Amino acid sequence: MFEALKQRVYEANMELYKRNMVLYTWGNVSEADREAGVFAIKPSGVPYETLKPEDIVVLKIENGEKVEGDLNPSSDTPTHAELYRKFESVNGITHTHSTHATAWAQAGKSIPCYGTTHADYFRGDIPITRYVSREETERGYEHETATVIAEAFEGKNPLHTPAVLVKGHGPFTFGKDGANSVYNAVVLEEVAKMAMIMLSVNQTSNELPAHIQDKHFYRKHGPNAYYGQGKH
Amino acid sequence: MFEALKQRVYEANMELYKRNMVLYTWGNVSEADREAGVFAIKPSGVPYETLKPEDIVVLKIENGEKVEGDLNPSSDTPTHAELYRKFESVNGITHTHSTHATAWAQAGKSIPCYGTTHADYFRGDIPITRYVSREETERGYEHETATVIAEAFEGKNPLHTPAVLVKGHGPFTFGKDGANSVYNAVVLEEVAKMAMIMLSVNQTSNELPAHIQDKHFYRKHGPNAYYGQGKH
Amino acid sequence: MFEALKQRVYEANMELYKRNMVLYTWGNVSEADREAGVFAIKPSGVPYETLKPEDIVVLKIENGEKVEGDLNPSSDTPTHAELYRKFESVNGITHTHSTHATAWAQAGKSIPCYGTTHADYFRGDIPITRYVSREETERGYEHETATVIAEAFEGKNPLHTPAVLVKGHGPFTFGKDGANSVYNAVVLEEVAKMAMIMLSVNQTSNELPAHIQDKHFYRKHGPNAYYGQGKH
Amino acid sequence: MFEALKQRVYEANMELYKRNMVLYTWGNVSEADREAGVFAIKPSGVPYETLKPEDIVVLKIENGEKVEGDLNPSSDTPTHAELYRKFESVNGITHTHSTHATAWAQAGKSIPCYGTTHADYFRGDIPITRYVSREETERGYEHETATVIAEAFEGKNPLHTPAVLVKGHGPFTFGKDGANSVYNAVVLEEVAKMAMIMLSVNQTSNELPAHIQDKHFYRKHGPNAYYGQGKH
Repeated sequence: MFEALKQRVYEANMELYKRNMVLYTWGNVSEADREAGVFAIKPSGVPYETLKPEDIVVLKIENGEKVEGDLNPSSDTPTHAELYRKFESVNGITHTHSTHATAWAQAGKSIPCYGTTHADYFRGDIPITRYVSREETERGYEHETATVIAEAFEGKNPLHTPAVLVKGHGPFTFGKDGANSVYNAVVLEEVAKMAMIMLSVNQTSNELPAHIQDKHFYRKHGPNAYYGQGKH
Repeated sequence: MFEALKQRVYEANMELYKRNMVLYTWGNVSEADREAGVFAIKPSGVPYETLKPEDIVVLKIENGEKVEGDLNPSSDTPTHAELYRKFESVNGITHTHSTHATAWAQAGKSIPCYGTTHADYFRGDIPITRYVSREETERGYEHETATVIAEAFEGKNPLHTPAVLVKGHGPFTFGKDGANSVYNAVVLEEVAKMAMIMLSVNQTSNELPAHIQDKHFYRKHGPNAYYGQGKH
Repeated sequence: MFEALKQRVYEANMELYKRNMVLYTWGNVSEADREAGVFAIKPSGVPYETLKPEDIVVLKIENGEKVEGDLNPSSDTPTHAELYRKFESVNGITHTHSTHATAWAQAGKSIPCYGTTHADYFRGDIPITRYVSREETERGYEHETATVIAEAFEGKNPLHTPAVLVKGHGPFTFGKDGANSVYNAVVLEEVAKMAMIMLSVNQTSNELPAHIQDKHFYRKHGPNAYYGQGKH
Repeated sequence: MFEALKQRVYEANMELYKRNMVLYTWGNVSEADREAGVFAIKPSGVPYETLKPEDIVVLKIENGEKVEGDLNPSSDTPTHAELYRKFESVNGITHTHSTHATAWAQAGKSIPCYGTTHADYFRGDIPITRYVSREETERGYEHETATVIAEAFEGKNPLHTPAVLVKGHGPFTFGKDGANSVYNAVVLEEVAKMAMIMLSVNQTSNELPAHIQDKHFYRKHGPNAYYGQGKH
């Protein structure tokens, strides 16, 4: 029934793998079909080398109930489901343990906007969450991971800053679809790497001035964007 | 006689090589067959490019006596043999000089549990041994390397924390079989790399809270694990 | 009309891609034909995987008017055009967000000549610009990027030091043609990486003595050069 | 006349390239034939992609006079020639600008023996030279590079510590033949990388105790070596 959605989610997961963003099975991409009220996600623990489009699992956004698929969905599925409920503009989510973004998450620090590479894709800081508390962990660890993410986005648009670092864990990135969230995960990893190298060269580096942050974001986004061939 | 065991050990060694975990001949993987009382290991100094299953050497766990094979076993064989004698639950051992794990071993520091990537696979710190003493070196350097490893595991389960850093030398990892110990060696290298990058971003990073360490370990291990497709 | 020029610019852009100097579409190479008064440049936002020679856009140096090509030129085109107007000896320009050079640009630091690898290709420091001001950004961000670059080269020859770091943004490199500017971009990335590693080993490293800087530059450049097979 | 020597030197140079130890043409390998009183070396500035065995240049050790070959030899040829004259046991020399070894050379620091990976191949520190002086540079820069190298080896055996860092420049490695000097260049790069990562984890790391340094060196070298299959 959801062949096209499953094919797209399969391809987005494989793109994450081909971009060297996952070691073994440490990543998952999902995409929502808002009209049908469902999202599709990678199955849990299946190696990318053997993953097939028909392995992709389809679930209801409303309650996480399985609609299609023989396999168990990713163990992070409750996080994805809750994020789709909380962030209505987001239709694609990627979770990885990519090296540099995960190291920043472990460092417990948001990534300030240090350069135009960051500003081209993310408005302001890449936020860091707080830890999931002991109580929340007992109540439902994966579900509550979405809670701490949503808190970090209070007053922020998750499509304008389509990435977050879960403290001690790793990144989640967002997009208008699964493929776009993978793209943002790859950009985040590079931004995190550049920021780390920059700090090793100059521990007192400054953030990019606001007028240049604005310029770079808006030449790529919104009604006055002039980057590319006019397709966005 | 031990064709299946030798084939498995051959494949585990080749996997270590394909994962870019060894430079030249700097690594060796072994696997024990407890019923037969033997273990099989890579021959010493043979390049991975020309290694064949029939080159794998089989020895008695009890006394390290050669049972099958024309070549000299790895020079680290006495370490493997003694570890199989000391750690009865361990049936696979990998030794490498993978870059980041070896750098931590040279730094003389255990790796604290800084994130969930670590917690998913290793309970608590990755322990660091003391140096092998001058006396122990004279008595039998490779055999005594197992002594300092065993000391570092007092009160610890080597399958719950299946990795150790030998001070000034490099990592050994453990598993339920050879392939599993290779998997843990690859994970250790990534965990060591993330920890190093994290420290360059934030020298005062904290360990992951205990409740999140527990959550991640037990969602992948033990009777209540719910990661994957139920095959473990 | 400009088939040969477009072919060369296509190949220079593809070389940048094959050298792992660009992520997605983050780079552009141009080359000037001074006799014809034009330069050719990559189109904006077109993936390298699908780029074709006929996609390359040709524009007048004088006023940036399009002469040939159906696609929009790179959004950085006004920077290239103005640089060709300001630097008459430069006939090739590369812009990338290569990791280490961009990190130095974000760090806001020029790269001192720390070694002979640097001295072989670049006289003295790799200069860092100031930020483009708010006023300049409003007036014409890409055009004014060339202004801050030109300021950084006052008293310097852009073919003797064929690289610059735009503060908070990333590198531009120069050459006698497009391919040569790509070559210099690859060298700059390596020089930036070596300098960063050097600082992590020794924060108080010294610059290379002037007589060795001179020796290395002039054994590769100018009338007494003796590196290579006498073709330059 | 020297077909076999040229073929070996060609292969050693290509091995350096395949091991990602050279960017563009930044490296050269030579090998001496002591009986014939000659050495063979890569030509200057020829890309590895097009290098052929017949391009290799053969010269007299005694005075650097060309014996065979149409091309100019590497610009570093006077350094190789003088090193063959000064170090009679050395029959292979590699010069590269490999990233981490060059960064240490720029940092102006010898590499202490921090671990067994180092101890397996190099006795004690990897020495650092002083700078070539202004006078020496004028007299003959490449020839005098051998002078500062020889000074750094006073009281040391260049086959026991077959690597040196030329201050501000980069590494030279030695071997019993060209291929062996390439092997040592690859090991040096890895040792330099591990030492750099180690320092970023622990700035106060200690050297490996002397008894472990000895153990590792002598289990691979000399009459009591027991590593490998007994072929050395």
